[in-house]
Amino acid sequence: MTMLRANTQRVLKDLYHLRSIGAYKTGVHRPTLSANDMIARKWLADQLLAIGHKTTIDGIANVYGRAPADGPIVLAGSHIESQNHAGWLDGALGVVYALEAARVAKETGIPGGVDVIAFADEEGHFSGASFLGSESFAGDISEDAMDGSVCRSGRGRLRDLLANAGLASRERVKIEPERYAAFFEAHIEQGQTLETEGLNIGVVTSIVAIWQYRITFTGIQNHAGTTKMAIRRDAGKALMGLWYRIEEEFPEISGQHSVWTVGRVKLSPGQPSIIPGSAEMIVQFRDAEPATLDRLKAKLYELVKEAGECPCTATIENMGESKPAQMSKALQSTLIDAAKIHAPEKWLIMPSGAGHDAQVIAPLIPSAMMFIPSIGGISHHWTETTCDEDIAKGAQVFVDAIGRVMSGG
Amino acid sequence: MTMLRANTQRVLKDLYHLRSIGAYKTGVHRPTLSANDMIARKWLADQLLAIGHKTTIDGIANVYGRAPADGPIVLAGSHIESQNHAGWLDGALGVVYALEAARVAKETGIPGGVDVIAFADEEGHFSGASFLGSESFAGDISEDAMDGSVCRSGRGRLRDLLANAGLASRERVKIEPERYAAFFEAHIEQGQTLETEGLNIGVVTSIVAIWQYRITFTGIQNHAGTTKMAIRRDAGKALMGLWYRIEEEFPEISGQHSVWTVGRVKLSPGQPSIIPGSAEMIVQFRDAEPATLDRLKAKLYELVKEAGECPCTATIENMGESKPAQMSKALQSTLIDAAKIHAPEKWLIMPSGAGHDAQVIAPLIPSAMMFIPSIGGISHHWTETTCDEDIAKGAQVFVDAIGRVMSGG
Repeated sequence: MTMLRANTQRVLKDLYHLRSIGAYKTGVHRPTLSANDMIARKWLADQLLAIGHKTTIDGIANVYGRAPADGPIVLAGSHIESQNHAGWLDGALGVVYALEAARVAKETGIPGGVDVIAFADEEGHFSGASFLGSESFAGDISEDAMDGSVCRSGRGRLRDLLANAGLASRERVKIEPERYAAFFEAHIEQGQTLETEGLNIGVVTSIVAIWQYRITFTGIQNHAGTTKMAIRRDAGKALMGLWYRIEEEFPEISGQHSVWTVGRVKLSPGQPSIIPGSAEMIVQFRDAEPATLDRLKAKLYELVKEAGECPCTATIENMGESKPAQMSKALQSTLIDAAKIHAPEKWLIMPSGAGHDAQVIAPLIPSAMMFIPSIGGISHHWTETTCDEDIAKGAQVFVDAIGRVMSGG
Repeated sequence: MTMLRANTQRVLKDLYHLRSIGAYKTGVHRPTLSANDMIARKWLADQLLAIGHKTTIDGIANVYGRAPADGPIVLAGSHIESQNHAGWLDGALGVVYALEAARVAKETGIPGGVDVIAFADEEGHFSGASFLGSESFAGDISEDAMDGSVCRSGRGRLRDLLANAGLASRERVKIEPERYAAFFEAHIEQGQTLETEGLNIGVVTSIVAIWQYRITFTGIQNHAGTTKMAIRRDAGKALMGLWYRIEEEFPEISGQHSVWTVGRVKLSPGQPSIIPGSAEMIVQFRDAEPATLDRLKAKLYELVKEAGECPCTATIENMGESKPAQMSKALQSTLIDAAKIHAPEKWLIMPSGAGHDAQVIAPLIPSAMMFIPSIGGISHHWTETTCDEDIAKGAQVFVDAIGRVMSGG
């Protein structure tokens, strides 16, 4: 077996180049279909053309390069746009690792090849889908969904921004599952586990499901001075009571990796001298185990029912219950084999608490995800970063693992 | 002693006329210095001129009419502007009662007279003061404060709106405390006590103080999927913990009439998938007893200190601690004497949970406040109302009580 070896200087050079496109402090600002995002996409397309890949930026801005090769083909990639004013590696790392794997595979001359993809809008700048680009690639985005999608930051309709980018008339590429032996995606961890434990590589077992609910309390809006405590129907206080019970009771029934968050609360009208007449909260929880998800959901519904009995009413709306995505056991072993060479005893198997395009691709072809450390676990902020050594080590494991799949082991 | 008797048909006619100026559904929309507010002020000034009062709309839009009389002078009034899209009686009732008292005093020909005032902006449309008009009348508003005051709804600077209304060059009238035997203000209750107990008249003992605090929690903003529960520093959860303890512990130490409210809560950044890095709440409480206020404040500070120990920090900012205003005991007795005639066994002594101009005037001259019922306790909303019979009964008590003061009893 020929081991594929990454050119880590080339990897770092490419990442630093991408960091210069839409630079914001030490991070980047490249929202999907912004001018700088399109510069980054065209740069990637040029790199793929330069190694002979048949390359397109498709009708939803996915950048897709097909290796002109016979033999086992691996698909690799991630996303290239960023959150607003966010980190330089989130997405870009996995794209550059994929590009490097494609180059090394070609240079090494082994049979097969690496197709590279940069999915559009993994970061969710546009409405209508959780993962617009990968869901389009998987065949899950209708023309109607495209029509209705708008930028969540007010930059306009998806269709108009695609037209401005010159992509309006292009077809959207769909996956050919039979073409691929595997899909590989690399990413920064966005958490502190690897850093805290002094490790280099996370081999992802599964991508957790996100279940999210909007809970609305209705009471009676009234004057905060003239309304006695005993007759108040304070929607804010009712919300607080539910929140308290969630934080008390979820730890009793959650799994080892469960997380839950109340990230948004709104009291109406939100004035210091007015008793809130209505109040809304969004409760989200994540886990990879369907039984745990079901247990947390049942508890939440039970608590909402109790919280809505008196003196306010409560309703709960399901905002989305995604499925956990299992990564291929065989590909986990392949990543572990590579990690044992390049980062011996410095790897860990772990679930992904964040969502990734790999969860959309996993139902279609065997898929794998690999993490490298995030300093301080910081994510979706311009201070996000990782040291060059960890980036280099990750590239070696990633490229080696892909080579093993192409070699049939 | 000559009993003054209100012409209740005239009172109702005037109130219905004011209701037609800036009518909004069944209420009114007359923010301070709006075109309709100025129409109402000019209407009032005309009524006062018609009974021979020396009348001005002064440099802050207070409408002030002086009775051309010898003998005991009573000051009476309230405010004439409304909250946005609010009720027809809040403010207007007390102004029309005062106008009626002035008319009846003149018509009856008893010695003395009733000066009438409609204070500007009791409803707080402009920044820089809690009670702009009455504080100006009391001599508490500087020219600098006038310069800095702006409309909270974005209609511009106070100075510019006064200039548009033709009031820029006018002096601001100051109270001559030695002129007055008393100040009387009538108002709808803005609560449900009178209605619930089937009563007609509330004799106000004191106007409660409002103490208000901004509490800010600082934690660490992080990814809601990749940050384990054990290492989170969730500012929102910390805020909820304090809120829970306030609701648990305040009932143990509050007074009979104490009220407290969390009307505003803000989680930052307020996204479902981001652990709040900071969180802010405004806690307000009201009571007429200084000892109770002190006790609630000490408890709040103690709870904030505990809440800020781990894992988030907490700070508390004093946003204002007003003084409770005691109404004159003698004038309470006068109101009770009148109530015993016109609403026997249908009156109650009670504190005012809401703020009123009378709290600004009370430190300067003996002051009294009288409430009539509010249907459903609704206030600051266009559905606010009171039945004609209650309005008429209130006018009789109000005018009679003023007559008793003018007669020296």
